[in-house]
Amino acid sequence: MGPHPAVAAIRLAVRRVLHDILTEQTAEHTRARNPHERAFAPLVFVACSGGADSMALASALAFEAPKLGIRAGGITVDHGLQPGSDLRAEEVVLRLRELGLAPIESIAVSVGRDGGPEAAARDARYAALDDAAERHGAAAILLGHTRDDQAETVLLGLARGSGIRSLSGMAAVSGAGGRYRRPFLHLDRHTARKACMEQSLPVWDDPHNTDPAFTRSRLRHEGLPALEKALGKGVVEALARTAQLSRDDADALDAWARQVETSVRDASGLLECAKLYALPPAVRRRVLRRAAIEAGAPAGSLFARHIEEVDRLITGWRGQGVINLPGKVVAQRQGGRLVIRQG
Amino acid sequence: MGPHPAVAAIRLAVRRVLHDILTEQTAEHTRARNPHERAFAPLVFVACSGGADSMALASALAFEAPKLGIRAGGITVDHGLQPGSDLRAEEVVLRLRELGLAPIESIAVSVGRDGGPEAAARDARYAALDDAAERHGAAAILLGHTRDDQAETVLLGLARGSGIRSLSGMAAVSGAGGRYRRPFLHLDRHTARKACMEQSLPVWDDPHNTDPAFTRSRLRHEGLPALEKALGKGVVEALARTAQLSRDDADALDAWARQVETSVRDASGLLECAKLYALPPAVRRRVLRRAAIEAGAPAGSLFARHIEEVDRLITGWRGQGVINLPGKVVAQRQGGRLVIRQG
Repeated sequence: MGPHPAVAAIRLAVRRVLHDILTEQTAEHTRARNPHERAFAPLVFVACSGGADSMALASALAFEAPKLGIRAGGITVDHGLQPGSDLRAEEVVLRLRELGLAPIESIAVSVGRDGGPEAAARDARYAALDDAAERHGAAAILLGHTRDDQAETVLLGLARGSGIRSLSGMAAVSGAGGRYRRPFLHLDRHTARKACMEQSLPVWDDPHNTDPAFTRSRLRHEGLPALEKALGKGVVEALARTAQLSRDDADALDAWARQVETSVRDASGLLECAKLYALPPAVRRRVLRRAAIEAGAPAGSLFARHIEEVDRLITGWRGQGVINLPGKVVAQRQGGRLVIRQG
Repeated sequence: MGPHPAVAAIRLAVRRVLHDILTEQTAEHTRARNPHERAFAPLVFVACSGGADSMALASALAFEAPKLGIRAGGITVDHGLQPGSDLRAEEVVLRLRELGLAPIESIAVSVGRDGGPEAAARDARYAALDDAAERHGAAAILLGHTRDDQAETVLLGLARGSGIRSLSGMAAVSGAGGRYRRPFLHLDRHTARKACMEQSLPVWDDPHNTDPAFTRSRLRHEGLPALEKALGKGVVEALARTAQLSRDDADALDAWARQVETSVRDASGLLECAKLYALPPAVRRRVLRRAAIEAGAPAGSLFARHIEEVDRLITGWRGQGVINLPGKVVAQRQGGRLVIRQG
């Protein structure tokens, strides 16, 4: 008799990602004409909080990696945000060791305040993971985000109202050189939890996940259930599919904007209003956004309403003055040219 | 002292749309070199259910139209779905007459069952409105959809998970020749209701709007409030902005797909797999969708998962057989060509 379907599902998801990683590594080494490097077994980490999703991921990695000649390691990050978080981290290390992972790292980070508590914790966490990956020369770090997390991320993006890029959720592959992989992005949270139960893995429920002070927690426990009640059970799946479609659409439009960028500039590199006007609005706005960022506007502070205002210099010209953008960047129309520069 | 801000807001919204209509009409007649036609005052209808949104719209149209030399008419549609709906329609006619509108039509329709009760009622309503517009040679029909309706429409589209086109909500201008106009798409429901109160206009609350049997009603009274509670008060505005951005993005990508369509076909008009493969996924999927619809697949039954399956003939070719699509359309790969035709 094979494993329980939930266990089979998490293992399959991890196996596929490990295959991808091996294929890419082989291609890279072939390109580098350095077949010796391949002699070292690649190392793949799992980032584990001790929660059901990442414990399931760790168990699947421990099971699948050795069969493919991959070393399986684990990292847990102690954010120091709750009393006893250091003991918690020690316990996770113990669990990962029981699963047979090596090396295992427990990294304590100090969380700043930039962008709110959730963003600050995330920034600190990824910095620690990046650093560990570099130190160990790891091929990848697996993250336990599920389809439910993806649905929540899409709704958080929707609340920003800043367009389809913010609806595209988390990527299956992200980070420098595709370091981060999310094998569970098509799996639901319930399956991960079930797989832990079936394998008798103790899991830890982060109190932050149910604390209504956190937006994501409110979304998980109130917003999404209410939406499911109104719209039907398929909402999570629909949101996850929206993420994938939006990501592809946003990628294509970004590529388009990059392509036309030189053709809408004059000999001296200034943007020509007449040529911008002829572009589809969606492409024009992306060209304008890229120009603003290139001039020094921080991407994170540049909102749709800023770009709309700059766009009106092209589409609704009635002698407007200088438009101020974040990062002390200014945009103005001068003799049929659009000038965007640090003021 | 001027009017109450809510009344000023609804009038401004209508005035802008009437200006647009006049500008377009003038341009059209100039093109047609028939200045005599302009002698007739154009007729603009308001579609009115007697609810707060469309009563506010009717009052603003009655106020603004005469100042611009526009005739203001009204139409109410009796869907015959509730007992006494005919009396209700008579009452709406009376209200519209009191506002000074003429001509006024009350049209009884019979609602079918296609696509569920809400879709069937909508289809019957627009057919009746189209017909009335044709009979009277109306320049436009104003619809009372507000920003709140738009937010609900975006969430309904999100629940389909079929991509950004379904997130783009309702257009400010739609229908044959841009017949339908939605002046209140940037105005919230509360403003329309307030404007009715301030003008002492009695309004009728459609029991369907609070009946939990209807998806939109559940969304309005449970889904959206829960989402606002989780994500903050700006959700409705963010959803409406998402609609606009998604619409522009979807338009641009559709245009791209139309542009490349001939370049990915061989001399005999068949789609070449190698050329399709080179396209960005978002564009390729749109080309495939257009080809399936051209071959006879009904657009409404063609889902993202169908197109994904056809796409795998290009991106994941491993000798798959014929793929069945709605409308008896089949897709298959033959000698480096993709053949999509009625089976």
